[in-house]
Amino acid sequence: MRIPKHVGIIPDGNRRWAQDKGMGKDKGYENGLDPGIESYRQLRDLGVEEVTFYGFTTDNTRRPSYQTESFTKACIEAANRLLDEGASLLVIGNSDSKMFPKELLPYTTRTKEKPGQIRANLLVNYGWYWDLNTLANAKGVNKNNIHNNIQSNDVSRLDLIIRWGGRRRLSGFLPVQSIYADFYVVDDYWPDFNKNHINEALAWYDQQDITLGG
Amino acid sequence: MRIPKHVGIIPDGNRRWAQDKGMGKDKGYENGLDPGIESYRQLRDLGVEEVTFYGFTTDNTRRPSYQTESFTKACIEAANRLLDEGASLLVIGNSDSKMFPKELLPYTTRTKEKPGQIRANLLVNYGWYWDLNTLANAKGVNKNNIHNNIQSNDVSRLDLIIRWGGRRRLSGFLPVQSIYADFYVVDDYWPDFNKNHINEALAWYDQQDITLGG
Repeated sequence: MRIPKHVGIIPDGNRRWAQDKGMGKDKGYENGLDPGIESYRQLRDLGVEEVTFYGFTTDNTRRPSYQTESFTKACIEAANRLLDEGASLLVIGNSDSKMFPKELLPYTTRTKEKPGQIRANLLVNYGWYWDLNTLANAKGVNKNNIHNNIQSNDVSRLDLIIRWGGRRRLSGFLPVQSIYADFYVVDDYWPDFNKNHINEALAWYDQQDITLGG
Repeated sequence: MRIPKHVGIIPDGNRRWAQDKGMGKDKGYENGLDPGIESYRQLRDLGVEEVTFYGFTTDNTRRPSYQTESFTKACIEAANRLLDEGASLLVIGNSDSKMFPKELLPYTTRTKEKPGQIRANLLVNYGWYWDLNTLANAKGVNKNNIHNNIQSNDVSRLDLIIRWGGRRRLSGFLPVQSIYADFYVVDDYWPDFNKNHINEALAWYDQQDITLGG
């Protein structure tokens, strides 16, 4: 089976999951933490080399504060659990903003992985325009080095993006790294994650003909 | 029914269609011309204001010359048919390259539409890196004006992208305008286009919850 090197995870549907359970919209995120570490372990064990989780965006921070506090707390906890696991962690997003949790500042440079672990990226207060913005100040940008000159230059090209929660859109997720990525949508909400989701996504990916635009 | 303002068309599967019919790979493109004008008319009549067709990319030009000649010829013909229809045509791509057909140079600035017609964009010798490249030379780029400073600034944000041929990837299609777009995949090959494809895509789009990342 052909295994993607880098998998993107869009863990959507937390609020809808909570509402369906009769809980407040903010209660979904804490139920997305176990899926986060389970999916990391599953992908690592399958031979994937890098995984990127869509935490929250600068767009998301316009939501009511009880929600922004809840997803910010979940991102801090997710980062700590990935560190405990021994992942090579990079937290990436606009850290100049007060919406970026200061607890995560140490991880805006990548940590070293423990033996047997892989690279894990967590987008926190990320914005696609923030990501591309550095192109304007870069010197000598040409078609071969755009990727090197964006904020997320330490995040590699994505092979496969899996989105939970049924929506078929990227919602600003790493536009440069997503250019050639295959996109798989799981209808279940993220807190209802189970290993079959990833197994099905990888079985589907295995059947795709990768051309990189050629 | 909520109608998208701007629809992107990725007309994929021309080569696979031709091979399935026992023809050479280059024979699919001419069979994609009628679908092009039919889809334009259908979207126009549904109230869509702008449609963008993915013609060919700078990546595609690495293919054997019998294929590049065939898809280049089909793009020239597609442009002429859209002009005959009276669309407000913009051909967009790297026109400094010899792969850009000189017949299309007059349309690298937008033509005026005839009454009752809409905007039609045709990507010809387009490259996502070519598109973003101008950001590096722009002055005063910030998060609010990235779109204004890319090559394709006269192409608006996409609401819905429909891809024929079963693949679930963007393949470099207008990365900035695709950020929030909903993505619908038709399994049939593009030369097998029929109006139900677009009707089904629009019925699906009508059910989506548009948040623009909020």
